[in-house]
Amino acid sequence: MTDLPKFVEFHEEGPREGFQIEPVSYPLERRAALIDSLSGTGLKQIQVGSFVSPKVVPTMADTAELFGAIKRKEGVEYTALWLNKKGFMLAGEAPRVDMDTRLLFYATDAFSQANNNCSATEMRDRQVEWLDLYLQQGLAPASAYIMTAFGCNFGGPVPIEAVTDLVQWIIDLCAARAVPLPAIYLADTVGWANPEDMKRRIGAVRELAPDARIGLHLHDTRGLGAANVYAALQMGVDLFDASVAGLGGCPFAGHGSASSAGNICTEDMVFLCEEMGIDTGIDLDALIQSALLAEDIIGRPLNGRIMHAGSLTKYRSRLA
Amino acid sequence: MTDLPKFVEFHEEGPREGFQIEPVSYPLERRAALIDSLSGTGLKQIQVGSFVSPKVVPTMADTAELFGAIKRKEGVEYTALWLNKKGFMLAGEAPRVDMDTRLLFYATDAFSQANNNCSATEMRDRQVEWLDLYLQQGLAPASAYIMTAFGCNFGGPVPIEAVTDLVQWIIDLCAARAVPLPAIYLADTVGWANPEDMKRRIGAVRELAPDARIGLHLHDTRGLGAANVYAALQMGVDLFDASVAGLGGCPFAGHGSASSAGNICTEDMVFLCEEMGIDTGIDLDALIQSALLAEDIIGRPLNGRIMHAGSLTKYRSRLA
Repeated sequence: MTDLPKFVEFHEEGPREGFQIEPVSYPLERRAALIDSLSGTGLKQIQVGSFVSPKVVPTMADTAELFGAIKRKEGVEYTALWLNKKGFMLAGEAPRVDMDTRLLFYATDAFSQANNNCSATEMRDRQVEWLDLYLQQGLAPASAYIMTAFGCNFGGPVPIEAVTDLVQWIIDLCAARAVPLPAIYLADTVGWANPEDMKRRIGAVRELAPDARIGLHLHDTRGLGAANVYAALQMGVDLFDASVAGLGGCPFAGHGSASSAGNICTEDMVFLCEEMGIDTGIDLDALIQSALLAEDIIGRPLNGRIMHAGSLTKYRSRLA
Repeated sequence: MTDLPKFVEFHEEGPREGFQIEPVSYPLERRAALIDSLSGTGLKQIQVGSFVSPKVVPTMADTAELFGAIKRKEGVEYTALWLNKKGFMLAGEAPRVDMDTRLLFYATDAFSQANNNCSATEMRDRQVEWLDLYLQQGLAPASAYIMTAFGCNFGGPVPIEAVTDLVQWIIDLCAARAVPLPAIYLADTVGWANPEDMKRRIGAVRELAPDARIGLHLHDTRGLGAANVYAALQMGVDLFDASVAGLGGCPFAGHGSASSAGNICTEDMVFLCEEMGIDTGIDLDALIQSALLAEDIIGRPLNGRIMHAGSLTKYRSRLA
């Protein structure tokens, strides 16, 4: 019937996605405590922060200090985001950043202009420099992200060819440099994806690159996050970025009081997988405790569901 | 690949689910305004309130007055919930209630005890009286709900046979009375469902009753609502209860500040369907306006997603 994977890997993005968007900086020791809490859940990759311009994103200005403050757990990778060469060099100088060597592509010019002040083609061509920078440091590229792969608020609908053309370009680049294909991430940056389109785009990428691992970076902007994950699982996808408690929503969005949705919620999606018999290596109840800590730090209700309802563990064990 | 339906029907439960659970009563004219707003969206069935004990559910005590206050729209059914014969008689006496002749079954004794102070078997047997009451009034049974059909906080996991045994009992009863089978609703009353189990249970019910229409009453308690709807759509299910803005969450749930999730959110699920090419007959942007009105009345952020992010209409039309 379906090709559900046996094991799914979640990369935790909450510490970066959740705090970079906030209007204020939260105390470093509390953010370190959240990361330490996440370290105990079974997650194998946690994105700690960003090495980006402190003028543009002041909440990430102390990322190097944060790396110094966390208690590292054996077997967990602590990564960071950067958007240019300067950021990459800063990450390399910071205390023990696990270098998550990303390449960044954009399916629309409009979003690339907004984020990088250059066209999607210019951004694509810059990735040759990024790749060579990684290779010079003896690092292979871990991932290639295609942003706005499902649609774009600035650029509108994204034809599937805009995605597959980029994938083909990545294939050709890696062949030219004789490096293995990185994991190819399709990012639903602004919440346009639906489950059927999810399947079509995953299918098209897999047809072009049957051996590449496919990952997804999804936002629950319009309430279809869980449905999109289920569609991807049915296509055998086993790699997702997610945020504890659904961190990453914009606190200023619509309507004054309400916050918009952020990334898909890690613990809700772990629950989805585990209930269907898919192993995640994650202790759901421990992760719910991390989510409640995140909510306590942020100081307002967050979007996660199971963190408020509780897992089914107690209902099942009560009857055992 | 899948058996997605061409048209999906949503029954709006927000006016009852949303307000019955609140600690205070909201002004009648505002609740009437919400129903009038919903009447303009294309929804064909709106549950206005309940005829239940005003001592137990004081927020529903003025349901008859509310029925008198709404502006009826041609082609829309305005229904109410009742849980016993007295409620049914009260509904019959109220101004123009469209009689939504439900039968109510429970998959677990524990939940039936909590809701009805009797075992699931006693509740089942009472439905013979309900059916005969409907038939005496010249009404056919419209629906048979199986509550806690996926699991129960009080009773624990629910074996699939607990559901199919009830369906067989309904089939036999309808055969004995020579009435057509009502729509059979599986209710995930407390948020235990997952997409694969959804498919199994729908498949088992369909095998027993191939001609019966299957409906779903789902709650997004643990964040899997959209995934469960997508799984049901893949099984061809075309009938869902839902609540505008995700109304129906408990304002007291966990953690002091946060509200727990309510029903699946009507406008988010309309978006899901329409994006996949499934017609719903509903004007999504009009429904989002109703959701924002509901949030304004309730006075705190509600769980709906697209109501805060906005639909894709403007992004698409901007480019047309």
